[in-house]
Amino acid sequence: MKIALINENSQAAKNGIIFDALKTVAEPLGHSVYNYGMYGAEDKASLTYVMNGLLAGILLNSKAVDFVVTGCGTGMGAMLASNSVPGVFCGLIVDPTDAFLFGQINDGNAVSLPYAKGFGWAAELNLQDIFRKLFEGERGLGYPKERAEIMAKNRGILRELKAASCKDFLTVLKTVDQDLLKAAVAGEKFQEYFFANAQDEDIKAYIKGLVN
Amino acid sequence: MKIALINENSQAAKNGIIFDALKTVAEPLGHSVYNYGMYGAEDKASLTYVMNGLLAGILLNSKAVDFVVTGCGTGMGAMLASNSVPGVFCGLIVDPTDAFLFGQINDGNAVSLPYAKGFGWAAELNLQDIFRKLFEGERGLGYPKERAEIMAKNRGILRELKAASCKDFLTVLKTVDQDLLKAAVAGEKFQEYFFANAQDEDIKAYIKGLVN
Amino acid sequence: MKIALINENSQAAKNGIIFDALKTVAEPLGHSVYNYGMYGAEDKASLTYVMNGLLAGILLNSKAVDFVVTGCGTGMGAMLASNSVPGVFCGLIVDPTDAFLFGQINDGNAVSLPYAKGFGWAAELNLQDIFRKLFEGERGLGYPKERAEIMAKNRGILRELKAASCKDFLTVLKTVDQDLLKAAVAGEKFQEYFFANAQDEDIKAYIKGLVN
Amino acid sequence: MKIALINENSQAAKNGIIFDALKTVAEPLGHSVYNYGMYGAEDKASLTYVMNGLLAGILLNSKAVDFVVTGCGTGMGAMLASNSVPGVFCGLIVDPTDAFLFGQINDGNAVSLPYAKGFGWAAELNLQDIFRKLFEGERGLGYPKERAEIMAKNRGILRELKAASCKDFLTVLKTVDQDLLKAAVAGEKFQEYFFANAQDEDIKAYIKGLVN
Repeated sequence: MKIALINENSQAAKNGIIFDALKTVAEPLGHSVYNYGMYGAEDKASLTYVMNGLLAGILLNSKAVDFVVTGCGTGMGAMLASNSVPGVFCGLIVDPTDAFLFGQINDGNAVSLPYAKGFGWAAELNLQDIFRKLFEGERGLGYPKERAEIMAKNRGILRELKAASCKDFLTVLKTVDQDLLKAAVAGEKFQEYFFANAQDEDIKAYIKGLVN
Repeated sequence: MKIALINENSQAAKNGIIFDALKTVAEPLGHSVYNYGMYGAEDKASLTYVMNGLLAGILLNSKAVDFVVTGCGTGMGAMLASNSVPGVFCGLIVDPTDAFLFGQINDGNAVSLPYAKGFGWAAELNLQDIFRKLFEGERGLGYPKERAEIMAKNRGILRELKAASCKDFLTVLKTVDQDLLKAAVAGEKFQEYFFANAQDEDIKAYIKGLVN
Repeated sequence: MKIALINENSQAAKNGIIFDALKTVAEPLGHSVYNYGMYGAEDKASLTYVMNGLLAGILLNSKAVDFVVTGCGTGMGAMLASNSVPGVFCGLIVDPTDAFLFGQINDGNAVSLPYAKGFGWAAELNLQDIFRKLFEGERGLGYPKERAEIMAKNRGILRELKAASCKDFLTVLKTVDQDLLKAAVAGEKFQEYFFANAQDEDIKAYIKGLVN
Repeated sequence: MKIALINENSQAAKNGIIFDALKTVAEPLGHSVYNYGMYGAEDKASLTYVMNGLLAGILLNSKAVDFVVTGCGTGMGAMLASNSVPGVFCGLIVDPTDAFLFGQINDGNAVSLPYAKGFGWAAELNLQDIFRKLFEGERGLGYPKERAEIMAKNRGILRELKAASCKDFLTVLKTVDQDLLKAAVAGEKFQEYFFANAQDEDIKAYIKGLVN
């Protein structure tokens, strides 16, 4: 699985800690991790939590990645922004049991974590445990497993509800504030990672037009 | 403020406890609480967490209420469903500090809580503390207060992103699975509470057409 | 390592869940688990949280076990009672990171967990994660490891402080309320497990005198 | 009620934040707060978590204060040390519900809090909520109130168990490592606060002999 890490400005200084925890856990499990920044508080390209959500949408809808790990101070803003975008189903995850249950029951494609609230000493241990629960096994199996079928059915209905609510993603890209969009894709590594991995030609073309 | 409580089938048996905690806190603060059910595990009208989200959308977009308290076993499903709907900004709240920060920073119009995960003995105390933090003072003031302006600005940008992503709510009502929609508004008290309070005539008319 | 599980009356009905989680994790790691009860709410031999602490003291001071897992509704009472007894250093553990840090930094010989407060759906997953962090590796290595030496030194000073505070354990056994003591050792399996494993002949002899 | 705050070296830099939160809550409720330090990481008089426990014992057994708020990185070490001392019943408190239940059920005379683990952004809000639950009303009333009597009875039995385990406090003072003891009472304000408030003449005299 391809996993993107996206951090916003208020917690950008922790990008290194989070990326380390994510790589340490996910790579030995066979996943690839793409660090889309911000890489530090002083990055020229600054992301707000709203941009995190939009960027998550770009990466997931284009299939540049299969899963997004984002967050902000409380995790709430980045979660709200991610869930505002078509095709993104973003959990808010605080502890390992949250991560496991989200993986098995909701089987979304993004998580937002709090990197300031409750994030104290040894928080890197909790991060690793969370990432392990998310990425170590098959997701979507239900918990308890006897309820797998009804849980899968409800996920399908949720997906239909969201599809009924949302415009198609390319339309969203075109109608959203173009300055916001440009800022969301201005990260130092965005172009390198995105154009090498994205699979939706229309989204790629539209983004290419923007960044040139 | 008018506050709706919406519970789904898996935690329907706890509706009484949650409603009590909500009323105990919110009414002395001058708010009105509308219990939209489910009222118990055996209710004829059964809500799934997806329906909770759709119902939250109906109540908020029609201005039948100003705020929705929903949830499910982990709170995650009802949060995802609520955030899938235009005009709903739903936090996932586990503790009183979450509630306070969500109120001050994100100032959304809905919260989803876990009523099974972590919900053990004396959980009613935590519910009351959460509701107090949400409903006792003015929201949207920022935390810390020096950051109020930038926080308000980002909320505005989030609202624009969501508006760019979503169709208008009446369109959603018309295109969503009509059986899902009928089930979402089938609760015993729905018609009494909704038609007395909703202020959007188009939404009212469309729902009226459905339930007759 | 030999590990005892001790539950008190208010959460006795959960003994099976806790024992399962403990065995599932600890036995594959090479540990043995002794279930000292209570085994259910209707047990003839009833333990209060105070008796849990006294029983923990008997098992640890006699070396019948190397480690005690106890608890009560909030974990607080059983923790206080355990720490009231000579030779017992009992942590209060709520999440896996607590367990890891307690093991590495404090390296005590007992833990108390809350089996009612916060103990909701899927709590068995958190139990397993906690037990894994406690029992899977070497304890007392410090966290971060650079601080191992100072942490070990402080543990030694703590042990000396407690030794200065407390009478020797046999004296405590003889002076404590003998009815309380008899009740603490009245469990159905106590004699079978204790007399087969205890290594302190004086404590064994005193208990033998009591239960005959 | 007279309340002491005691911090150890690893979290000494947070003494100001904790003291502010404690005063902000406790003083309007009619309590007095004595800040026994450490006041900062550079204090000449350095306290380890073991010294925190010994100092808590001195303050409570001499009745210089009625209640002690202490802690360390995880809260665990200061809790263990406090509970190692005669006459101290110290809870480990992480959230407001812990604080309320500890106050109503266990009614101890000390609490230890984690000031590093889980202590992130806005942690001062959680501190205030915890202190409010501890200090705002009468303690020891039981929760639920119907269980007040049995809870009070068990507290009495716990006190008897601890009394059976421990030597009297003056003996402990005399037999504990005297360098540890001198370090525990070396804080800048100790003599001012202690000698003005302590009510046990034997303890006062012994400490006076030490610090002269």
